[in-house]
Parts: sequence; C-alpha cells; structure tokens
Amino acid sequence: MKKDYLKIYRRELFDRCIPFWERHSIDREFGGYFTCLDRDGTLFSDDKYLWLQGRAVWMFARLHNEVAQDKDWLELARQGADFIRKHGRNAEGRVYFSVDRQGRPIHIQRKIFSEVFYIMAMTEMARATGNASYLEEARELFWQIYDYWQNPGKLGRPMLAGTRPATALAEPMVFLCLLEELTRLDNDGRFAVIEEEMTEIALRHYKPDRGLVFENVSTQGDVMDTPQGRLLCPGHAIEMGWFLARLGQKNGDGELVRTAADIIDKSFDGGWDPEYGGLYYFLDAENRPPLQLEWSMKLWWPATEAIYALLLGWSLTGEERFREKHDRMHEWALTHFSDPDHGEWFGYLDRRGEVTHTLKGGEWKGFFHLPRALLYSVQVLEGLSSKE
Amino acid sequence: MKKDYLKIYRRELFDRCIPFWERHSIDREFGGYFTCLDRDGTLFSDDKYLWLQGRAVWMFARLHNEVAQDKDWLELARQGADFIRKHGRNAEGRVYFSVDRQGRPIHIQRKIFSEVFYIMAMTEMARATGNASYLEEARELFWQIYDYWQNPGKLGRPMLAGTRPATALAEPMVFLCLLEELTRLDNDGRFAVIEEEMTEIALRHYKPDRGLVFENVSTQGDVMDTPQGRLLCPGHAIEMGWFLARLGQKNGDGELVRTAADIIDKSFDGGWDPEYGGLYYFLDAENRPPLQLEWSMKLWWPATEAIYALLLGWSLTGEERFREKHDRMHEWALTHFSDPDHGEWFGYLDRRGEVTHTLKGGEWKGFFHLPRALLYSVQVLEGLSSKE
Repeated sequence: MKKDYLKIYRRELFDRCIPFWERHSIDREFGGYFTCLDRDGTLFSDDKYLWLQGRAVWMFARLHNEVAQDKDWLELARQGADFIRKHGRNAEGRVYFSVDRQGRPIHIQRKIFSEVFYIMAMTEMARATGNASYLEEARELFWQIYDYWQNPGKLGRPMLAGTRPATALAEPMVFLCLLEELTRLDNDGRFAVIEEEMTEIALRHYKPDRGLVFENVSTQGDVMDTPQGRLLCPGHAIEMGWFLARLGQKNGDGELVRTAADIIDKSFDGGWDPEYGGLYYFLDAENRPPLQLEWSMKLWWPATEAIYALLLGWSLTGEERFREKHDRMHEWALTHFSDPDHGEWFGYLDRRGEVTHTLKGGEWKGFFHLPRALLYSVQVLEGLSSKE
Repeated sequence: MKKDYLKIYRRELFDRCIPFWERHSIDREFGGYFTCLDRDGTLFSDDKYLWLQGRAVWMFARLHNEVAQDKDWLELARQGADFIRKHGRNAEGRVYFSVDRQGRPIHIQRKIFSEVFYIMAMTEMARATGNASYLEEARELFWQIYDYWQNPGKLGRPMLAGTRPATALAEPMVFLCLLEELTRLDNDGRFAVIEEEMTEIALRHYKPDRGLVFENVSTQGDVMDTPQGRLLCPGHAIEMGWFLARLGQKNGDGELVRTAADIIDKSFDGGWDPEYGGLYYFLDAENRPPLQLEWSMKLWWPATEAIYALLLGWSLTGEERFREKHDRMHEWALTHFSDPDHGEWFGYLDRRGEVTHTLKGGEWKGFFHLPRALLYSVQVLEGLSSKE
C-alpha cells in the first residue's frame, strides 16, 4: 500500500509536475518565471509575482539539494535568483509584490510575505552553492521583516483606533518556516529564542477544547466574536500542523509532535465537506456566513498540505486515524485536481469539485505547494520503506 | 404584462426589501446601520462599512424625497447621516472604509469610493432637508476626490515604473453618478465640463466593433492584452449603460441614449450564462482564465442593475430586444435571489444558481442595489402606465 503511494507521488512529481514548469515557466530572455499559465502551459500574462518567483527559486534549488545534483535544476533556480536580486527589491530593501516581464515594479504590498519567499530563495541558494552572499542577504532581510513584524507601522499601514489588536496565523507560520531554513545554515542563538516565541504564538491560535485553529486571535490569544475572529482556514491550520510537527521532530519535543498531530487531525475533520468531499477554503467557527466569496471552493493547496501532513502524522504516530484520512484526501485530490492531459494540477474547483479555472498557475499558484508536498511525501515514504 | 411587473416590484420593494432593513439594520443606540445580517436579520458583525452607510443614508432619503414624505424614512436617513458626519472622516477629510459600532476607525482604503457614497448621502440629505451644510460638505468633498483622481499619489498608493497607465470603468462611473446628484442642486458650470470629460472616458471603455465594455483600458483608451486589460464585468457595464442612458435622457442627447442602449443590450448578451442562466461576475475577453476566484458566481447586483437597465432601454427605445431580455433576467432573478421566507434577496449564488452565502448583507451588500433598482424600475413603469 505504502509502496503504491511512493510510486504515485514520484510519478506526479517527476513526470507530471516538474516537467510542466521546466517547459513552460522559464523566461529564457529576461530571467525569472512565468506563472500565468493556462491548462496546456499557454501564457496568459507575463507579469511576475514575487511570492511565486521566490518560491520557485527555493523549489528548484531544493530539488538540486535533496534529489539530484546532476540535473540542471540549480541553473533554473539561479536564473530566478538573479532576476529577483536584480529587480525584486526597492530602495528601502522591501520586496515588490509584482513586476513586469522585464522587472519593472508594478505593485508592493504592505505585508511581509514577498520578503518571506525571497528569504527562502536565498537560503536554499546558499545551501546549493555555498556562496555566502546569499546567506548574508537572507539574514539581513530576516531581521528587517522581524522588525516590520514588531513595528507594523513601518509598512505604511495605519493602526487606527478601532483596530482590534490581533495576530494572524500566517505571522508565526512564516517565521517558523524561515527558521527551519535558516537554522540549517546559521547557528545564531537568537533564532532559538524567536522559534520559541513564534511557537507560543502559533499555539495560541489552537483551542484544543474546540478542536479548532483560529486564523486570527487577540494578542492575548483570545477568540474574538467577529467575522475575522471566527474565521477558520482548514488548509492553513493543517499546514501549520506539519510545520510544528517537523519542529517537534527536529527538537525531539514529543509533546509538540502530539499537539501538532492533533491539530492536523482535527483541522482535517473540521474542514472536510461530507457532502461533496474535499476541504473547504474558509469556514466560520459559529456557522455564520463567511464573508469570503470563495469560502466553499476547493483549492489545490489545502489538499496538497493535507496529503503530506496526514502522511507525516501517520509516520510520526503510527496511528490509523491518519492513514484513513490520508487515503481519503489522496483519492479525492488525485481524482479532482490532477490533469490527466497536460500534467500538473488544477488549482480551483467549486464546492462540487468541478474545475472553475483552467489555469495551472496565476498570481498565487506557482511551482511550490504541489511539488513541495509531493517531495516531502516522497521523503516520508522513502524513510518508512528504508526502515522496513 | 407591464402592470404585473409594477405590482411585483412594488411588493419586492415596499413589502419585502425595505421592511427587512428598517427592522434589522438600524443601530438605535449608536446610530448608523448594521449591514452584516444573516438570512433572518440576525446580526453577525456590528462593524460599519462606510460605502454602505453612505448608500443607506442616500436610499432612505431618496425614498423620503421621491416616494412618501410622511413616513419616517427621513429620520432613518438622518440618524445615519449624523453617524457618518461624526465618525466617518479623518483629520485630512478622507472617509474611512470601516469603523466599529461606536464609530472608531478600523480601515481606510487608498481609493475614493467611501467618499463617493458619503457625497451621495450628503446630496440627498440636502435635497430632503434644504439644509445648506449638507450640500456644502458634498461640494467640498467632491472637489477633494476630483483632485485625488487627478493626483492618485495623494491617496498614498505609489505609482511604480511598471504600472500600466489605465483608467478603471468605476472612475468615470462614480463621477457621472455624483454629477447626476449634484447638478440637481447646484448649477456650478464646472460640473458640465467634468460631465463631458467623464462621459468621454467612460465611452473609451466601450468597443462597439466587439460589443464589449472593458473594465480597464489604457489612458489612451486602448485595449491592453493583460488579465486586467481583458477583464469584463457585465454587471458593471450594464450599470454604466443605464447611467449613460439617464444622462442622455437628461441632456436630450439621442445618440448617447442609443449608444447606452447598445451597451446594455450587448453587455447583457455577453454576460449571460447560457447553461445555468444569470450573469457571470467576471469574464476574460479572450476566454483566458479570469484571475478572480469568484468569476463564475452569480451576484445579486448585476441582476438588479440588469433588470432596471433593460426596462429603461425598453422604455427609451421601445425595442422588443429589451423586453425579452428583461423578462428573462427578471424570471431568473426572482426565482434564484428572492428569499420567500424572510424577505430581501440573497447576494451570492454559485454558477448553478445555488445559494452559497445565507447573508442578506455584509461588507459589500447593504441597503442599496436592490432597493435602488426596484425604485427606479417602479418609476419607469409608473411613467409608462401614466402615458397609456
């Protein structure tokens, strides 16, 4: 049974996902990656989104570092890294949200996520090349966004009198994600302190008595009775679950692993649509109408995160509950998202599981969630089979 | 046949729409309007959204001015006007996007639309009360946002080197909308000049050879081959169509009326979903995948705008094409949006026409599109029947 999954994920990753992006996303003239790709790879916009540029650099470099050093993945990563280093940052060092094909800036967000994926790109390039300048840039930008996080006014978003002081789940998540990457290369003692701080903040979003992870809680960690406060995003909660499970595994913290496994398990249960299958994008904890128009859609990335998280939960705990859920998620995802004709996965389905968007990539979907989850799943399964 | 519609629209407006908002949306403690109302009127957030506050003031005042002066609609408008005058504007005179129940500011957009609906509120209150201070405030804010429109940098949104200079259809539309209101009360000669300027800009978005209204065109009026440039929003195009038709009617400009009628007709044809009925929210002019996740959803407001626009087209041209389309839109809308149990209309349906959100109001849906379209439709039909 396990063997089958390993074969399937290898095939999805190496035969169906990676070739799609190698073939269609590389801009061989200006560098960087196209991501607005229709079903068969046809370009429908040549704008470049920095979240997705950084993520693709990271992903190609990761493949080089952990799968095969003899393929040209490092070159595909490097041409993206060159592009974002040349065009990605403004005079204050902030990273743009989007630039045009040649690299002229279009939009900058008052958020830190473009920076997050830029840092991921730099760390994995540092690992791939040993070139210290990548790690230097990653470190410098990490401290810059840690400062923004502590002083959000510096991003230009005014804090008005009626704003409810809160943390968003994405904040501790991205810092934990970056720390996993940075601590691999740099033993700066401050990282351990921030890792602890962010773990504590992340866990404030989880309410074990209700089995729910809230997207936004007050800065004291309390649930807020507002649409923002009641908001759930099961895919996000599951992704946080596996971040914490890996962290617990790294630090030999069995209690954190058990909590993380519960987060994955309960978030999957709460997010699953018993009528049509798949994970809802958003829910309201009190069953009030979510404000997001797309709340009932089924997106690819909660599915990819769940597949890996449930496999990881199973491998770490050996508990059967993860196996059944993994198999259910796997079956639904492969049937509904995977495109038999052109490879890669569709990104957006309606509640019933019908494809609403033919695109394989866009402003938010690139070479990241699917290949990362497939690679990590392959690694879990290889680990298990080597133990047998 | 016409008589039936008049009866139906009066019932929808006076028995089913207005009572819902009178009953559930008035904050009798702090003033202003609740808009986050679930199917039966249950409150699910008490935050107040300035677009919707201004619109509700306008709507209640309009009912007072054009339907019945003996009801308490003016009082319902006044308590909203008081609230936004007290809490709606910051030190620079900008209008917030949202405030909390007591009026403490939460969010401000780098856009002019909160101001637009604030001005509408002030003009209709000026008309209702004869109080010059309302008109003064409307005028002053009008010139302020006209300045922002000419100098968008003043809103704090940086114009970066790769930004494609473009106009959004909403820009000329909101100015034309405001000018209809202001010129009723104020014969400042500069308004006629801006009316001409905005009409010209609005018409640049319409390409008669393709029968399409583009949401965004270059500042030269050219179609742009980008997702933003190919974007269509049929409901928006139809709404612009009726703005222009009313303007042509006011100015005795037969050519503008004919162009506007064509815009309504063709935008309806292009937006109609032949498989499930209803109007798509967004489309791509070249059938590329729209980037908006909600593109295929059916929203209430394109339907309400189409009902009125098609009736208006019919009354102005006498052409049968408008009658058949009106009847089709009417039938689909009444069947799918109107809530038989609690009054008002649902706002959000999936492509098949199934309700995705039980809410009757939220951040974007308030006391505006439905009652305005119903009132204007009643007025068209009363005008026709008085001629018989």
